[in-house]
Amino acid sequence: MAKKDAGSRVRDALRIDGELPDPGSIPVGPGKKAKALAKLGDAADRLSALQEALFAEGVGGGRRSVLLVLQGMDTSGKGGTVSHVLGLVNPMGVRYAAFKKPTAAEQRHHYLWRIRKQLPAPGQIGVFDRSHYEDILVPRVNGLLTAAERRRRYAELNAFEKELTEAGTTVVKVFLHISPEEQLKRLKARLVTPEKRWKYNPGDLEARGHWPAYQQAYADIFEKTSTAHAPWYAVPADHKWYRNWAVAELLVETLAELAPRFPEPGFDAGAELARLKGVGVPA
Amino acid sequence: MAKKDAGSRVRDALRIDGELPDPGSIPVGPGKKAKALAKLGDAADRLSALQEALFAEGVGGGRRSVLLVLQGMDTSGKGGTVSHVLGLVNPMGVRYAAFKKPTAAEQRHHYLWRIRKQLPAPGQIGVFDRSHYEDILVPRVNGLLTAAERRRRYAELNAFEKELTEAGTTVVKVFLHISPEEQLKRLKARLVTPEKRWKYNPGDLEARGHWPAYQQAYADIFEKTSTAHAPWYAVPADHKWYRNWAVAELLVETLAELAPRFPEPGFDAGAELARLKGVGVPA
Repeated sequence: MAKKDAGSRVRDALRIDGELPDPGSIPVGPGKKAKALAKLGDAADRLSALQEALFAEGVGGGRRSVLLVLQGMDTSGKGGTVSHVLGLVNPMGVRYAAFKKPTAAEQRHHYLWRIRKQLPAPGQIGVFDRSHYEDILVPRVNGLLTAAERRRRYAELNAFEKELTEAGTTVVKVFLHISPEEQLKRLKARLVTPEKRWKYNPGDLEARGHWPAYQQAYADIFEKTSTAHAPWYAVPADHKWYRNWAVAELLVETLAELAPRFPEPGFDAGAELARLKGVGVPA
Repeated sequence: MAKKDAGSRVRDALRIDGELPDPGSIPVGPGKKAKALAKLGDAADRLSALQEALFAEGVGGGRRSVLLVLQGMDTSGKGGTVSHVLGLVNPMGVRYAAFKKPTAAEQRHHYLWRIRKQLPAPGQIGVFDRSHYEDILVPRVNGLLTAAERRRRYAELNAFEKELTEAGTTVVKVFLHISPEEQLKRLKARLVTPEKRWKYNPGDLEARGHWPAYQQAYADIFEKTSTAHAPWYAVPADHKWYRNWAVAELLVETLAELAPRFPEPGFDAGAELARLKGVGVPA
């Protein structure tokens, strides 16, 4: 797990730099479903091993962690990514949090208040299903922020993520990029399939009606908050199999670069073995 | 998922009622590893389906949840259970919390303070890796509680769990029961295997030296806190494959009895389909 072996092929290809790739495109990696599923299996093994090492490092006193931020339009597959990618690793090492419309109690606090409460502990992979970016996205689309307020909020978000990075958290921000045509299909599927109907929310159509405004708001977010310490990645998400492979690889590359290490024991293993023999269990 | 189909064969066999079963025994279910692994695969499918329904119910406004409490001596397999059983379901629906020695800050609060912060949300399966029971177990073995204080604490724990139950949380308390011989093997394995060494803690030997006192403290806990609303189960845990199967089945039976239901949509699906056609995406 040496740093030089980590690689950044997928990160380099998916890092946002201007125009987004087509939601159905394959900018890097497997172009066929069967191949992508096989490669996801390989990624699962690497991800599990790296996650265990990160967790062990945390138990040993290390302070590093990873925070995966998932953003995207409704039906873009945030939940599916959690299930299919984070479901590959030990639940002990994953901290999942979903951020919906802030409650009345949450609204009385600074918008980062509820976010801070859900940050990953050392050794964990935190996953934000929506995030602090909703707090600029939604008010902006709804015309509630002046240009000056927007600027201040971008600066706050960048400062917040800088602080996380300095505290040992590697921030990986992923935009799951779907097309409006694919969203239409997925919304229809939610309505016509009884066991999927609970995922449908009539409010999703309001957001869909503001599609261009959301795309513009996202474009501004990517421009203003893609920093060296917390870059944004765009994952084409019209193909679920590609989305899962890509997010898994982004995590693998990120963790491999961290090169988490099993901690040095704070004891003499030989002496403990000898001591172990002496500690019998009284009848 | 009708209630009458739920069954309680495994719960009935493993519910603690006096003497504990032998840690290497098979009180119910598969007696061979290959069979147990195959049956764990079946349980995984049922558990996933039930967990998704519980989660959906929570999204729809339901308040029910499940709390799995895992207790046991060091190396009894609490972490392994989380990995192999909770790893079978969607991470979105699982809330994991480990409780170690309370920090100085935690000690300034009531001992249930830190516990309450980690309770599962509606629709979730919460998992406690150690729990509020450590707060009677450890002080008791260390001789820090008078008989009157112990009685008061048992009453508090029962009242706390009653409150959880009334708020919609089904509490499933599992004691992972290993033998001192098996613990010795596992502690040795942690010392001699470099990539397992981080799991070893010299303090584990102190607890091992107090084995009979811990068994007595557990016996009292089972006697005083096995209630109708929050029973204790003993899972023989010398065989990891049996332990995983048994905990998975306890969860499946518990969830099947809850019979979680996908929520009725709060909208007219036909009308929404029609509306969907009208909400195009402006160019």
